[in-house]
Amino acid sequence: MCGGTHSKAVLVSAEGHILAETDGPCTNHWLVGVDNCINGINDMVQRAKIKAGLDPDTPVCSLGMSLSGGEQKAAIQKLIDDMRERYPKLSQSYFITTDAIGAMATASDYGGIVVISGTGSNCKLVNPDGTQVGCGGWGHMMGDEGSAYWISHMAIKMVFDARDNLVTSPHDINYVKKAMEEYFQVSDLMGMLPHLYRIFQKSYFAGFCRKLAEGGSAGDALCQHVFTEAGKALARHIVAVLPKVHQDLFSGELGLPVLCVGSVWRSWELMKSGFTQVLSEAQAHGYSHFQKYSLLTLRQSSALGGAKMGAQNAGASLPLDYSANVNVFFSHTFNQ
Amino acid sequence: MCGGTHSKAVLVSAEGHILAETDGPCTNHWLVGVDNCINGINDMVQRAKIKAGLDPDTPVCSLGMSLSGGEQKAAIQKLIDDMRERYPKLSQSYFITTDAIGAMATASDYGGIVVISGTGSNCKLVNPDGTQVGCGGWGHMMGDEGSAYWISHMAIKMVFDARDNLVTSPHDINYVKKAMEEYFQVSDLMGMLPHLYRIFQKSYFAGFCRKLAEGGSAGDALCQHVFTEAGKALARHIVAVLPKVHQDLFSGELGLPVLCVGSVWRSWELMKSGFTQVLSEAQAHGYSHFQKYSLLTLRQSSALGGAKMGAQNAGASLPLDYSANVNVFFSHTFNQ
Repeated sequence: MCGGTHSKAVLVSAEGHILAETDGPCTNHWLVGVDNCINGINDMVQRAKIKAGLDPDTPVCSLGMSLSGGEQKAAIQKLIDDMRERYPKLSQSYFITTDAIGAMATASDYGGIVVISGTGSNCKLVNPDGTQVGCGGWGHMMGDEGSAYWISHMAIKMVFDARDNLVTSPHDINYVKKAMEEYFQVSDLMGMLPHLYRIFQKSYFAGFCRKLAEGGSAGDALCQHVFTEAGKALARHIVAVLPKVHQDLFSGELGLPVLCVGSVWRSWELMKSGFTQVLSEAQAHGYSHFQKYSLLTLRQSSALGGAKMGAQNAGASLPLDYSANVNVFFSHTFNQ
Repeated sequence: MCGGTHSKAVLVSAEGHILAETDGPCTNHWLVGVDNCINGINDMVQRAKIKAGLDPDTPVCSLGMSLSGGEQKAAIQKLIDDMRERYPKLSQSYFITTDAIGAMATASDYGGIVVISGTGSNCKLVNPDGTQVGCGGWGHMMGDEGSAYWISHMAIKMVFDARDNLVTSPHDINYVKKAMEEYFQVSDLMGMLPHLYRIFQKSYFAGFCRKLAEGGSAGDALCQHVFTEAGKALARHIVAVLPKVHQDLFSGELGLPVLCVGSVWRSWELMKSGFTQVLSEAQAHGYSHFQKYSLLTLRQSSALGGAKMGAQNAGASLPLDYSANVNVFFSHTFNQ
């Protein structure tokens, strides 16, 4: 599983047991380029083989990858071709899907909605028949609403706009301004320009979100505000795919299952009011069969789902115990 | 005068006559780096000397530069030091100001508000006593509201959001979508990703704004919508600095003089309704001494103002005929 900031590899036996896990850096090929992406993946898998006591020169049966940015067919075929050529000892077969689909495959074989909010954001509906409908996932230049990048950007933009008298901040900006100056090691807004342009790194910029989460938890109203807005933004992704949700996905015990992936969900308490508000409004406006939803989180890396799909693609099936892979952390039933 | 896309050099005699003009590429050091910026400037000035029949090995008396991105003191001192060292035959003295201040110096020695909307956007109030108050000018990652980049981005974002069902477009997206596919030579939204990331070029991206202006003039409602929003955004920059405008700037014959710089102002007719609406609302909410404003455009390159300020800095004064340098293209008197 390869996100915008960190990546993870799991080596799984034919019986579905995890033999080894390794970590690596960002492997989004849009962000780091194809070469860095391939090298990073090879390095993680080879380390996993050694950790599991296997011969690193013997290819694994199947390498299933779930990559943020793994959407475009021509690009992923090129990734696979390059990997085969450059690292012939890596794997016998290859399969690439997106981080969202890898996560969903880890949680269920029946479908649901995945909402990713880490460095970036993305939402994918997977219906029971396997059909998919996406919303978002276009990166920080064209979306990433509700992501750590977006939250950091919104908070910092409010500091800029307040300084400019362009937009009045809804709350005092002093905590955010000080936290920004500390995190980015700058003394004024001018100092932010290199961080926005010359030395811009999306994952570093997005990392400021942690400071905002701390501020929100400590009671700062502006930090709380940006997380409430993030909750709304993420819920809007769900509302966007709602018209395409298959009837059966509403009717399980959990109601509509929403799989929440990524570090921003750790700040659920700060996002809750905005998130629930948007879903309640949507439900009230014409989704009478939408009675309940539950938010789930993974207890295993979504690399596991990627491995499962890779095995399937190679003609094998990995038995996964889905109930052991997820946690329900919030459920809501709408008032009728 | 050096904008985000094009740059211009004017060589001026001690009597204030323009001896030669030359053009060059973008010289914003934040965007192109210090080396490209310095090389670009040297090349333009040397060509101007030759064009004017002067010896290129003889330094000019003074090089006054108005640069987009010429705001940060440490950075501009470094630019000057590097220029002196690398090109000793370029000039005897150096002066750098921003594109906004260079434009204002071309139009008046009494002050006013400059609103730049080209590739990027920026607003600067210059009071009669020379004091300045800015709003915006932080670049496309943190602002540029109302600029060609921002207009292009807003229109394209509406196509993405409509595809995602994330936000309902206020008008039919088909013209914008087709224009986007033609301009960027893509067949779907995925194809836009390289233009947003790997091969992103701000000035090329912003150039799509021309297609939107054509669409707006031809009657497309979504194109008209984004320009109306741009008009509002630019007017909000003026509202932001309004509390700091010196009383005397309101009381001239033209009312508050607003100098409009940059290619987006060519689409004034499309922006007019949004622009006038925001200023009228602001005036109605407590600026009783704000009775009238006029929009001016330069008939000369704002490099002329940069040259004037450079000469001043070197102890000389360039006589400029301000009335010949500007055109009034719109005036509005508020109903009392």
